[in-house]
Amino acid sequence: MNIVRGYCEYRVPYADTDQMGMVYYGRYLSYFERARNELMRALGFTYKEMEAMGLGLPVIEAHVNYKNPAHYDDLLTISAELKWLKTVRLQVYCQIYRGEELLADGYTIHAVMDMKSKKATRLPDKMRELFLKNLPEKQGSLEN
Amino acid sequence: MNIVRGYCEYRVPYADTDQMGMVYYGRYLSYFERARNELMRALGFTYKEMEAMGLGLPVIEAHVNYKNPAHYDDLLTISAELKWLKTVRLQVYCQIYRGEELLADGYTIHAVMDMKSKKATRLPDKMRELFLKNLPEKQGSLEN
Amino acid sequence: MNIVRGYCEYRVPYADTDQMGMVYYGRYLSYFERARNELMRALGFTYKEMEAMGLGLPVIEAHVNYKNPAHYDDLLTISAELKWLKTVRLQVYCQIYRGEELLADGYTIHAVMDMKSKKATRLPDKMRELFLKNLPEKQGSLEN
Amino acid sequence: MNIVRGYCEYRVPYADTDQMGMVYYGRYLSYFERARNELMRALGFTYKEMEAMGLGLPVIEAHVNYKNPAHYDDLLTISAELKWLKTVRLQVYCQIYRGEELLADGYTIHAVMDMKSKKATRLPDKMRELFLKNLPEKQGSLEN
Repeated sequence: MNIVRGYCEYRVPYADTDQMGMVYYGRYLSYFERARNELMRALGFTYKEMEAMGLGLPVIEAHVNYKNPAHYDDLLTISAELKWLKTVRLQVYCQIYRGEELLADGYTIHAVMDMKSKKATRLPDKMRELFLKNLPEKQGSLEN
Repeated sequence: MNIVRGYCEYRVPYADTDQMGMVYYGRYLSYFERARNELMRALGFTYKEMEAMGLGLPVIEAHVNYKNPAHYDDLLTISAELKWLKTVRLQVYCQIYRGEELLADGYTIHAVMDMKSKKATRLPDKMRELFLKNLPEKQGSLEN
Repeated sequence: MNIVRGYCEYRVPYADTDQMGMVYYGRYLSYFERARNELMRALGFTYKEMEAMGLGLPVIEAHVNYKNPAHYDDLLTISAELKWLKTVRLQVYCQIYRGEELLADGYTIHAVMDMKSKKATRLPDKMRELFLKNLPEKQGSLEN
Repeated sequence: MNIVRGYCEYRVPYADTDQMGMVYYGRYLSYFERARNELMRALGFTYKEMEAMGLGLPVIEAHVNYKNPAHYDDLLTISAELKWLKTVRLQVYCQIYRGEELLADGYTIHAVMDMKSKKATRLPDKMRELFLKNLPEKQGSLEN
């Protein structure tokens, strides 16, 4: 069964490069974010809507593997998919491609947070089901 | 009479450079911001305190003149001073130096805003007096 | 006669917002850059190709008018067009729209620079003609 | 025996915040960079000098643990120390504090690269010895 993934295309501006002539390593985390936004839109609601419900997904851990440099004016494809969902945490896995070439991948781990109380919280059932349906099969039982 | 100015030192990170080997032009507006923060601290209250009072100073106009490029690892001195204050607007003038050399200057024009109503508002009297005392003399009468 | 303009669509990421809940004012200069890149592509060559010829267009002046705030997840349309061309300088005018609503506009003035000698230089004739053909009519004579 | 560490103080500008009212997660990697720059300066040469020798330390892996949010106007202390050195790779461990409170930590893994050939290379002996002397004791033997 196909799971939902988020994708976006992104043209690298001069702003993202550094004097090594490649994209600065810190920029990749905002690239991941762009794909996560599209993942949620593809799942049927946006992070903006989630915020309007008083929920947030602050990042508690981030990891990037840099394989090949991205350059100015490259047209990148960035993808995001859910990796696992626990009671109050979830992981998203991201990849950055230039055509067929994988430039970087990595992940972010997010707390599910009630933004008013600033406390971890469960996802609303409807959202939770949607997320669970879109996990890769092997991780389907990671419910702790 | 001496007027209060804000100053900060800033070491240019790799993050701020672009592949032309100099600081990316868009970064200078955040340099100006750093000096504006110090200007307000030097005046006796911080922008954070201003926000806690429900006031904000959103930028409505910004201008930068780029004279000489800043480079990675340069130690910059950034200054900010009030230029004029009208009923619900004010201008801050900023300069960026590397040692004795002026690299860039420019200004920002800010609305004084009630952040709840999102409407322009007068500064509280105490703050207004403080600002007026620290305008350059010639602009002292720009009270319209 | 129609002149060539550059356009791009841009989805605002969380990365671009600040705690006022709108896009940070310094980010707009990189938005302008994205549209300038597309202007050059639309004119028939890219800034990357220009760099490969040893030419650069460093910014010597930038100005932004902020009219209405852009927000997270907004889909913006950014446009760029040539305003004037002098012997070794040119101006590009940019606009940022959300749908029909103009959020900001402004301009950048660029030096035409030989990147090896770091000296101002004339554009190659072919490029110059192309640029001249795509100036708004009134400015057609600003050849000094 | 004491090992050399790099430190810098950093005042959080509005530019670094996002609409969640905290520092955007992608910004931390540039904070790490600021401390790495100071680590190298403290070791006796700067990254700028290293680049002048034709060497670079591109990041091939980065990891951040976010423990407590940093906020606008916070005065942070960022530290960096060498963790291990292999033939053509090294790891730097970084911490971000606000006063006594640890806000985030993480690491970057760097390739030692000949920037002309774009190939991995050994550090020059003098630099290598300096780095080895400043590893935490337990990792002293990680010479593979």
